[in-house]
Amino acid sequence: MSGGKLIGVGVGPGDPELMTLKAARALASADVVAHFAKAGNASHSRTIAAAYIREGVIELPLLYPVTTKLPKCSNGYRNAIGDFYDDAAAKVAAHLDAGCVVAVICEGDPLFYGSYMHLHARLAARFSTEIVAGVTGMSGCWSAAGMPIAQGDDIFTVLPATLPESELARRLADADAAVVMKVGRHLPKLRRALQCSGRLDRAIYVERGTTADSVMIPLAAKRDDEAPYFAVVLVPGWEGRP
Amino acid sequence: MSGGKLIGVGVGPGDPELMTLKAARALASADVVAHFAKAGNASHSRTIAAAYIREGVIELPLLYPVTTKLPKCSNGYRNAIGDFYDDAAAKVAAHLDAGCVVAVICEGDPLFYGSYMHLHARLAARFSTEIVAGVTGMSGCWSAAGMPIAQGDDIFTVLPATLPESELARRLADADAAVVMKVGRHLPKLRRALQCSGRLDRAIYVERGTTADSVMIPLAAKRDDEAPYFAVVLVPGWEGRP
Repeated sequence: MSGGKLIGVGVGPGDPELMTLKAARALASADVVAHFAKAGNASHSRTIAAAYIREGVIELPLLYPVTTKLPKCSNGYRNAIGDFYDDAAAKVAAHLDAGCVVAVICEGDPLFYGSYMHLHARLAARFSTEIVAGVTGMSGCWSAAGMPIAQGDDIFTVLPATLPESELARRLADADAAVVMKVGRHLPKLRRALQCSGRLDRAIYVERGTTADSVMIPLAAKRDDEAPYFAVVLVPGWEGRP
Repeated sequence: MSGGKLIGVGVGPGDPELMTLKAARALASADVVAHFAKAGNASHSRTIAAAYIREGVIELPLLYPVTTKLPKCSNGYRNAIGDFYDDAAAKVAAHLDAGCVVAVICEGDPLFYGSYMHLHARLAARFSTEIVAGVTGMSGCWSAAGMPIAQGDDIFTVLPATLPESELARRLADADAAVVMKVGRHLPKLRRALQCSGRLDRAIYVERGTTADSVMIPLAAKRDDEAPYFAVVLVPGWEGRP
């Protein structure tokens, strides 16, 4: 292993106060702070952590390629994304080879559906690594809603809304508590799956959870079927609560 | 609503540095700090948060009754636990009625399998409440293991090891990534279910995750079949990783 150290730093769901003490300390000690963002957009993790990024630190933005012309299931898309992560890992490795501590800041928790994992998979065999666990986006959502999500022997599941309607319905009926991610254009299908599985009345729709302009309403009360990609739907368990 | 405020404060998985900035601030402002513990044992959440509890603050330990003589599925057990939570809520309510800010400190995240939920369910209609989301125990475990748990469209599930063997096997085969909790005496059964579902080779056994004396080994390499109640088993997803 060479001299540098790679730190995956979870910065939590959105409220900067939901960063951990360890994340703040990691940012204070880092030589380089890297963050993923779409080209032309501000990095969400950068916005969350802004107050804790040292003045004069080296910043390394890792900008996703614009791939809107390629379907997500195509080889072309997979190759473009694979090349992007290879290139990002090479950029980070150059700083690690120089002996730097590189903090990669990540929304939520670094190893739970995070882009950091693509760097970790490419670099952990060559460099010393550390993970600073973070509060997940979903914890931020149910906490902002004040909604107990799972208790006792509840079975809890996380589902992508991209699943076929029948699979969504089967899995929603098969769990006590669920979080459905990547809602976006799948909302009409998800609504039908929740109805079919008898869970629509419990479902809560959340947009931009833990930010100042968050939206949080029972899904049954949401009139239209439009949603941003990052909206989530929470289905609380603990049905036997007192 | 009367004057006081109830705050459910997640203090994270064990390492005090994995507390959030918001949790530290909530403890600095609280008039009363309450914590659950078994009679005769130190409260884990109290141990984690110790450095952030103000000197002279009112502490309110909420001590679980000793119910080892009653089977968990019996009405006697359920009544004793129900009475205990009613009594704990009454003690907290007395401070809230007096206009105090009461912080209930909780390991992990307050609304994810936490005891705090029993107070919240009893008090949230009468008093102003706030939840400070926390890093969950399971995030602490996979972070300490440096093990990416779920990515992309992975389906992730949390299962209690108390399920029947066939149900465990079915659900482990049906998810991309899983965390199995409350392992304890169920380890031999869980091992068989993992074998049957083809997931044994990926499973990681974790004891006391994120503490100094944590144990973390591939389950297949663990020779005996003894485990403490709070041990967990992680089954990582992201099988298509590069």
